[in-house]
Amino acid sequence: MSNIVEEFNEYRERMNSRILEDNNKIIKRIFNLDTNAFMKGALDVKTKELLGLVASAVLRCDDCVRYHLETCHKEGLTKEEVAETLSIATLIGGTIVIPHLRRAYEYWDALDANTSEISGLKE
Amino acid sequence: MSNIVEEFNEYRERMNSRILEDNNKIIKRIFNLDTNAFMKGALDVKTKELLGLVASAVLRCDDCVRYHLETCHKEGLTKEEVAETLSIATLIGGTIVIPHLRRAYEYWDALDANTSEISGLKE
Amino acid sequence: MSNIVEEFNEYRERMNSRILEDNNKIIKRIFNLDTNAFMKGALDVKTKELLGLVASAVLRCDDCVRYHLETCHKEGLTKEEVAETLSIATLIGGTIVIPHLRRAYEYWDALDANTSEISGLKE
Amino acid sequence: MSNIVEEFNEYRERMNSRILEDNNKIIKRIFNLDTNAFMKGALDVKTKELLGLVASAVLRCDDCVRYHLETCHKEGLTKEEVAETLSIATLIGGTIVIPHLRRAYEYWDALDANTSEISGLKE
Amino acid sequence: MSNIVEEFNEYRERMNSRILEDNNKIIKRIFNLDTNAFMKGALDVKTKELLGLVASAVLRCDDCVRYHLETCHKEGLTKEEVAETLSIATLIGGTIVIPHLRRAYEYWDALDANTSEISGLKE
Amino acid sequence: MSNIVEEFNEYRERMNSRILEDNNKIIKRIFNLDTNAFMKGALDVKTKELLGLVASAVLRCDDCVRYHLETCHKEGLTKEEVAETLSIATLIGGTIVIPHLRRAYEYWDALDANTSEISGLKE
Repeated sequence: MSNIVEEFNEYRERMNSRILEDNNKIIKRIFNLDTNAFMKGALDVKTKELLGLVASAVLRCDDCVRYHLETCHKEGLTKEEVAETLSIATLIGGTIVIPHLRRAYEYWDALDANTSEISGLKE
Repeated sequence: MSNIVEEFNEYRERMNSRILEDNNKIIKRIFNLDTNAFMKGALDVKTKELLGLVASAVLRCDDCVRYHLETCHKEGLTKEEVAETLSIATLIGGTIVIPHLRRAYEYWDALDANTSEISGLKE
Repeated sequence: MSNIVEEFNEYRERMNSRILEDNNKIIKRIFNLDTNAFMKGALDVKTKELLGLVASAVLRCDDCVRYHLETCHKEGLTKEEVAETLSIATLIGGTIVIPHLRRAYEYWDALDANTSEISGLKE
Repeated sequence: MSNIVEEFNEYRERMNSRILEDNNKIIKRIFNLDTNAFMKGALDVKTKELLGLVASAVLRCDDCVRYHLETCHKEGLTKEEVAETLSIATLIGGTIVIPHLRRAYEYWDALDANTSEISGLKE
Repeated sequence: MSNIVEEFNEYRERMNSRILEDNNKIIKRIFNLDTNAFMKGALDVKTKELLGLVASAVLRCDDCVRYHLETCHKEGLTKEEVAETLSIATLIGGTIVIPHLRRAYEYWDALDANTSEISGLKE
Repeated sequence: MSNIVEEFNEYRERMNSRILEDNNKIIKRIFNLDTNAFMKGALDVKTKELLGLVASAVLRCDDCVRYHLETCHKEGLTKEEVAETLSIATLIGGTIVIPHLRRAYEYWDALDANTSEISGLKE
């Protein structure tokens, strides 16, 4: 299993629990909205995940990019669709997006590697 | 015809010509890339326009939001699809996006008003 | 009555109604959270308004600054307290905050002028 | 002693000295202003530290958040007051603040752990 | 005389005086630093003005861009040097810089127009 | 050899190749523009590198700062010129630039250390 995927998810889940057990109502509702906003509505889930990805990339938030890359991967979006989305982010957000692009490509490769390993184990 | 749409486009086109006649190669190529990036590829034009819209909204660029609202309108995206895209922008980008949301709604209404007028004139 | 205060509030209220009648759930809930977050909790309302002001100023959102200046004014915060908050914003956010500082001072003066006029009318 | 607190402070102090021995007047004066701006004035020190915290959080600067969390902790601000400040930051700055929220909670826990250890040593 | 140059300077000077008479020490010192930082040092004034221009452009602050365009114009920097600086800003900062580029070109034209008029008056 | 310089360059080159072999036209052209924009034109290479440095610093992109520090170092810019550029970045961008200033000074020291070592080896 690729380390960067596991480490990211372990830390993310552990600290999210820590935040939510703190019981601040505003923060809890924002977390809740985050789940609802990406559900199927007038737009389908795939499109919404790409919207989340491009917004995260132009705002240069590596952890947000990783989170949306992971959901894109699960939803079956192709590398080409993800790359086009990231290319729009780099054009709109400028070359300062490039370091985040490097880490996004690395994370996508790790997601691919994990999937191959899992499907290998199943056989 | 709604003033804000006309004024925006008149200024935008006039100053873009002024910039391009200046003949700076880097700027010209960036303008050129901007046209190419939103053409049909692995993703269709509608999805790309929504990506452009959400990125513009979280980066809080009113003119960029207007530009993409206009293309979304022309491409036949519905108010619901645009509103969902803007809701994701407001969630990811926070309440500081709200002033831009107000101007986005105003611009969309102006685009609708112009269309009704034009179709009225045709009859 | 000072124009900039009236104009800002008229536009803000008109477009907020337009947005809310659109009935997008995510946006409605974010508007709702915005009301709740600034109510008295572990911190009092005055402190929260200053937090809203400094955050708006460093993020360079003129309309958000205006909104919080107005609430600060109503809550009876002094010019000195507001100025210290804005000075921290300018230090943390840098000299690019200065143009917003100019507009913030102008708006505060307008709020003061309106109050004098209203209290003059009452006498 | 928690590593993240120690490591952050060691690096911060070492590099600050390195910067200041370089003798650039503008940088030295900015460092100096930073000390003065958070001293008691029209606003008390606690309020100013919360202003520093919320500004750092919406600007998504982890090191700045850590620095202000540490001063808040020393000034005796409660977890509830700090959490409300961070909830306002997350609402205003949006969900892209969440990864910084995770690291802020982790750092606060480390500050708490260090304090318990120190008070344990004293007994 | 071109309106946008005059209006910008009139407002800027009037509100700067208003801010400075308020006597907040932190703000006064930041204004003071701003003057010192752009004086000749290891780098000459022209280079520093271009640094101020590119930083203002990528941070998308129209008023800051105008201020530095004006100083660049006074210092005798050519249109080509200014355009190259703005092209680097657009590349690094992305296409969201373009609306600011339009306003920068408009302002530079206004500065040119004013200069021609003044030299015309002198003859 | 200093680790941070080597590690940065190894990762940067490895991931850039990974991105470019992906063959997304928009991204490839942006990379290409990045090379062209910093070549000698109306402005010399040294000035352009300082423009790249100040823009990277105010946008708080550590990897971009590192990249431009490295080119500045190769182009023979002095520590004083680089420090003045960074001081302008800290003034315009505010104290949130300071953590990036610490990492910039650390990287410059590492570049200096590597050069000494290399020139030592040559003797």
